[in-house]
Amino acid sequence: MKFKVAFQGERGAFSEQAGLAFFDERMEPVAFNTFEDVFKSVKKGVVDFGVIPIENSLYGSIHQNYDLLQKYNVFIVGEVKLRIRHYLLANYGVNLKDVKKIYSHPQALAQCEKFLKSLSEVEIIPTYDTAGSAKMIKEKKIMDGAAIAGKQARKFYGLKILKAGIENHEKNFTRFLILSRKKIIARENPKTSIIFTTKNIPGALYRALGVFAQRDINLLKIESRPIIGQPWRYMFYLDFEGSIEDEVCSDAIRELKRLTDYYKFLGTYEKGREVG
Amino acid sequence: MKFKVAFQGERGAFSEQAGLAFFDERMEPVAFNTFEDVFKSVKKGVVDFGVIPIENSLYGSIHQNYDLLQKYNVFIVGEVKLRIRHYLLANYGVNLKDVKKIYSHPQALAQCEKFLKSLSEVEIIPTYDTAGSAKMIKEKKIMDGAAIAGKQARKFYGLKILKAGIENHEKNFTRFLILSRKKIIARENPKTSIIFTTKNIPGALYRALGVFAQRDINLLKIESRPIIGQPWRYMFYLDFEGSIEDEVCSDAIRELKRLTDYYKFLGTYEKGREVG
Repeated sequence: MKFKVAFQGERGAFSEQAGLAFFDERMEPVAFNTFEDVFKSVKKGVVDFGVIPIENSLYGSIHQNYDLLQKYNVFIVGEVKLRIRHYLLANYGVNLKDVKKIYSHPQALAQCEKFLKSLSEVEIIPTYDTAGSAKMIKEKKIMDGAAIAGKQARKFYGLKILKAGIENHEKNFTRFLILSRKKIIARENPKTSIIFTTKNIPGALYRALGVFAQRDINLLKIESRPIIGQPWRYMFYLDFEGSIEDEVCSDAIRELKRLTDYYKFLGTYEKGREVG
Repeated sequence: MKFKVAFQGERGAFSEQAGLAFFDERMEPVAFNTFEDVFKSVKKGVVDFGVIPIENSLYGSIHQNYDLLQKYNVFIVGEVKLRIRHYLLANYGVNLKDVKKIYSHPQALAQCEKFLKSLSEVEIIPTYDTAGSAKMIKEKKIMDGAAIAGKQARKFYGLKILKAGIENHEKNFTRFLILSRKKIIARENPKTSIIFTTKNIPGALYRALGVFAQRDINLLKIESRPIIGQPWRYMFYLDFEGSIEDEVCSDAIRELKRLTDYYKFLGTYEKGREVG
């Protein structure tokens, strides 16, 4: 059985790689231009699942996707922590000494700054996408240039590795979420994600976190986002250990709802492994 | 007495406008290309103060500046909440019907989407900077185009207002911080900003927030940022009401330090007024 899985970016993107790490050969990749298109296609049932980046271990949260989780009624059903390894890729026949131009997305270029500084007389050219730069050197048969992208792009476009692992930091992971229109509650090693806003009174956030602390429920992450139209008030995104179907967690949520103005369940899913 | 005040962007930027709202005619504006240059110039004493955006009421925090507050030893000594009003600006002699091209930064273009959709046969051209697009139409004497920028850019480049207040949301504020190399503790209407990391144990954040809640100290904002090299662990930025010199606050901080691995004081400063 195959699943249509939506992701943002060109074929060979890190999101596609994260999806493959989760679904293996059951994944039929469907590329979209924007994150919002991924959410829409999941919501409408055009695809079976979506995969979106939510956080990088060096650069922090991808806030647009936090906001889209609030906007669209989809559920988180899985998680992947993908080690981001960058490769210098070129067409077969090109050697490192031939490379006069290096193409990639500005963030990937920044993540490989140390390696790039070690090269001399090479022009650095920012592009819209890592996998897109691999696609471009392939399609235009560029023989004096190279692209920085992930291994999925190498595989998809059939490129040669000039140098592997050129990123500055080895602890560079991106956490991806798997989205579905259907609620699927994981039983193994579960974590749960919710959104809430507190009432506008002193100590409100502390009391909200207290419903978890008092039950020894371990908080994994808290993220705040602005509430549109209410400057300097915030929406909180909380990840905690456990399943929404555990008695202790559902009890905590029942108490939390009494303290909050707004509550939304995003999903109970298996904690992601580190892969790649 | 005049103060040299550093900001990022072209002359006429919203950061310059925020600085002027704070310092009035005592401000001598000094433009820099990057936020990091602003921090460096404050740290080295090249300028007296810096002004940086930290948060927008619609789009959220400017994380690069959170990270720079941790990296550089500078103090927050003031705050400005600037109403972001966008203006359609052109050279004198240009009327709305002459405008075939509109230039601005992508975020400003997005913030004026409703207005832009009301126009027909106009090309939208993204640029690197709002004030920079005003500068460009002035310098190139463009007579078939207009720029979207703030009123400070209008004034600085001597442009005509084709239309005022073209932003989608009226509750669009950006909060700016005033930076100094010297610690200056505000007495009037003070708020305090700190950074800390909790020990890696369940309930650690709850207990850290508890030192404030138990003393009825009102928390204004919490922001989390990744700790580099420790994936899925976070640094917390906290804003609370009160002065570091109040007994109740300094008592809270003393208790907080026992619960944290890392603590940094950023400043006690007067809560900013909404201006502009």
